[in-house]
Amino acid sequence: MPKRASGYIMYLTIYGADAQRIFMAKDSNDKQFVKDIADMTVDFPQWYTDVVLKTQLVDYGPVKGTMVIRPYGYEIWERIQAELDARFKATGHKNAYFPMLIPYSFLTKEAEHVEGFAPEVALVTHVGKNELEEPLVVRPTSETIICSMYAKWVQSYRDLPVLINQWANVVRWEKTTRPFLRTSEFLWQEGHTLHATEEEAREETLRMLEIYRSFMQDVLAIDVLTGVKTEKEKFAGAVETYSMEAMMLDGKSLQAGTSHYLGNNFASAFEIKYLDKDGQLKNPYQTSWGVSTRLIGALIMAHGDQRGLKLPPRVAPIQVVIVPVAVHKEGVLEKANEIFSSLKAEGVRVELDDRDQSPGWKYNEWEMKGVPVRIEIGPRDIENGAAMVVRRDTHEKKLVPLGELTSAIPTLLDEIHDNMFRQSHDFLHSHIAVCHDMDEMAKALDERNFVKAMWCGCRECEDKIKEQLAATSRVLPFDQTPVGDKCVCCGKPASKVLYFAKSY
Amino acid sequence: MPKRASGYIMYLTIYGADAQRIFMAKDSNDKQFVKDIADMTVDFPQWYTDVVLKTQLVDYGPVKGTMVIRPYGYEIWERIQAELDARFKATGHKNAYFPMLIPYSFLTKEAEHVEGFAPEVALVTHVGKNELEEPLVVRPTSETIICSMYAKWVQSYRDLPVLINQWANVVRWEKTTRPFLRTSEFLWQEGHTLHATEEEAREETLRMLEIYRSFMQDVLAIDVLTGVKTEKEKFAGAVETYSMEAMMLDGKSLQAGTSHYLGNNFASAFEIKYLDKDGQLKNPYQTSWGVSTRLIGALIMAHGDQRGLKLPPRVAPIQVVIVPVAVHKEGVLEKANEIFSSLKAEGVRVELDDRDQSPGWKYNEWEMKGVPVRIEIGPRDIENGAAMVVRRDTHEKKLVPLGELTSAIPTLLDEIHDNMFRQSHDFLHSHIAVCHDMDEMAKALDERNFVKAMWCGCRECEDKIKEQLAATSRVLPFDQTPVGDKCVCCGKPASKVLYFAKSY
Repeated sequence: MPKRASGYIMYLTIYGADAQRIFMAKDSNDKQFVKDIADMTVDFPQWYTDVVLKTQLVDYGPVKGTMVIRPYGYEIWERIQAELDARFKATGHKNAYFPMLIPYSFLTKEAEHVEGFAPEVALVTHVGKNELEEPLVVRPTSETIICSMYAKWVQSYRDLPVLINQWANVVRWEKTTRPFLRTSEFLWQEGHTLHATEEEAREETLRMLEIYRSFMQDVLAIDVLTGVKTEKEKFAGAVETYSMEAMMLDGKSLQAGTSHYLGNNFASAFEIKYLDKDGQLKNPYQTSWGVSTRLIGALIMAHGDQRGLKLPPRVAPIQVVIVPVAVHKEGVLEKANEIFSSLKAEGVRVELDDRDQSPGWKYNEWEMKGVPVRIEIGPRDIENGAAMVVRRDTHEKKLVPLGELTSAIPTLLDEIHDNMFRQSHDFLHSHIAVCHDMDEMAKALDERNFVKAMWCGCRECEDKIKEQLAATSRVLPFDQTPVGDKCVCCGKPASKVLYFAKSY
Repeated sequence: MPKRASGYIMYLTIYGADAQRIFMAKDSNDKQFVKDIADMTVDFPQWYTDVVLKTQLVDYGPVKGTMVIRPYGYEIWERIQAELDARFKATGHKNAYFPMLIPYSFLTKEAEHVEGFAPEVALVTHVGKNELEEPLVVRPTSETIICSMYAKWVQSYRDLPVLINQWANVVRWEKTTRPFLRTSEFLWQEGHTLHATEEEAREETLRMLEIYRSFMQDVLAIDVLTGVKTEKEKFAGAVETYSMEAMMLDGKSLQAGTSHYLGNNFASAFEIKYLDKDGQLKNPYQTSWGVSTRLIGALIMAHGDQRGLKLPPRVAPIQVVIVPVAVHKEGVLEKANEIFSSLKAEGVRVELDDRDQSPGWKYNEWEMKGVPVRIEIGPRDIENGAAMVVRRDTHEKKLVPLGELTSAIPTLLDEIHDNMFRQSHDFLHSHIAVCHDMDEMAKALDERNFVKAMWCGCRECEDKIKEQLAATSRVLPFDQTPVGDKCVCCGKPASKVLYFAKSY
């Protein structure tokens, strides 16, 4: 993205009405932020980098492409983990842990799989000074090693279904990396299940996609498009890959999670067989599904603004910060502590900032760090029996009687969540352009939209769109109501509805 | 350990009064277990292997020395994690995540550290077909990479203390491996803290040791000896290593956790410097501390018996199993379900086993799996308004009125915990032999004791004891009240009290 002059008029020129939405926080106060954080309308990637580094979510590791997840970022991941883990367990899944080092030969057993992953796998060849007989792959994903164990464990139809999830680190050597979005090593969960029938496995694939989708809505406050990937874009070794695609504030798509129906591709390659009720030996049907630390990148780019992070309340490490004003005045710190204790007792993640800094400095700091609610409390507030409550999402300020704070805050956090989701939903749905030819598509992409179009089904058109417009196919949505009858690319008869977008 | 004939008389001959303690479960019913699980008095290592495999805690991975932690084992780890994590956070620590791949050059910066770890590190040399410029070490521990980041983050005394913990996998290539106890890859937590003064860092080192010790007591029901390691046995790069040592049922010691005072060895090697209040640039003082999946091995070998596992209630994945008797009889399953629901509502981890198997088969299965409490409920019990409650630890059976079950069970789980800890405590303290010369020591070790003895302080004596008696020094206890005045090995004047033991 080229550097451009900044200024509010320019934003309107460049982005039209969007600027209103993206930069609703833009007021005279914002100048001081702009000098610390790159202007998001001018250089969105730099804005992202500035925000993740300055808020201490993450840092670069010493090896190229690696990241250090700092405490403020890791706490978000811990909440993502806890929320997802509870949902996995509620649907009958259990966690396990499989070795990270995989014999190279395993990778080669499934033909598409090795083709997809071999170029980017890290190989352990030596221990100390001794060369290993066979190089070991640092897992880029665990289908192969898990299948090798399932082949031992599964003998009879009574052993099915197998519903196992793993929380782990994986390594994929990427050429271009960015913190959270694409790193050589990242943290994720990978579910790997086996089922007696294709129907059950397909149900599981969709069940997990729906768990991901509702998690995005209910926890990260992000609306997503769901559907199935094209052959070109599916997981290496899958029969079908379902995906959820989230729209970032720059109009690009981020693949936020995938759920794969694997058929018995891996089960037959790894000779997983069970004796069915009818006395026949059969391969079970398999699924795998995963989300990663990439989700942290998603929530930054779906919700942030020029001041920095805007964290969804349900994963925010700090939900409420209390900033005492005129802290040296009698009674202020006591009252602030009282509010702190009562909110903490209510289960709110609250912090009292009694550092030796000006209130204004603190306001900026906590806004940058994306804390959903700020409570300001000073001598006059105490006199009036009320505290100033400030929302990070809308910047609204409201005096709340002290006696009502404890009950008002949890409700307000839910309101903020709902508002953030609504904004995400509106932003996504107001940025989907139906296109009928390549010119329309080029324009819509330039204006930072997802494109909904008809597609003939051939790989050549996908390749051509990627080459000419730098956009890729995202998903074939479940609702296939046609929006035309000709392929957006070749103009031939087309019956498939497909989303395209520029993407991360 | 040589194979020996079994039989209760033999146990008494071999182990004396211990057999009573270890095999208190031994009764006529035990024959059926002995055929599945090796006799623990005859071949303790094989007993261990049989138990961990048959209870599906763990399996061997495809690469030599690796393990797969199966769901039943992983659930124990999840509870260990949750309990420890809460204790770390309550003492001000936060979690973070550092990259697993470390430039080889980092390892060499601290001289003792590289000497200790270089021979057993796994090296990534290639990505796909391309050789890397510098080989990368798969972390065997993270002091080096974490210090490289701390050097960036810490500038001023205001940045101290740094209190960070990491949950991660590590790889150390071991020649002899056993599931949980010593595996090429294992899961652990590693705390890494920086402090302005030596005093604060030393306090932290001991604080974390005490957190580990009390966790062992309050959660795993295992008593331990604590103290400081000798120079020979300390962590590669530490000034001092504190350790807790747990006694396994075969009289061997298992190092269950360590807390290191690192001085500024790493801080100066990695040039971590902060500007102190006095305007001077200084190296901070450092600690690191860790426990691992080895703890699962510890609880198996500290509590198990001939029937299998005996899980401490606070980490047992299933605390109570309900086995309906005469399940087809009217009302039995309903009543069992009712008990199940009321216990579940009480927060008890309960399972109802309504599989199509005989009650006796189920009793054996759940005893092998170490479930602390079994509830048997049949038509006659329902008539009498009571259920049979059976303890795994003592095999006591007791009729409990149905109306009292919900309140009785949580209390009983605490009683079981307390009893298991008391047994561990008594076993440990009745197996410490004070020795004054090598002959006494040889005999005491043969009789499966820890040895408490005076030591002159020289490395040669430690080496000689290892060579001649296959025992190593474990810890110098905090209570250094002398038990003599001559070294147990060389007979020269000695003022240090030191524990020795055979060990895992």
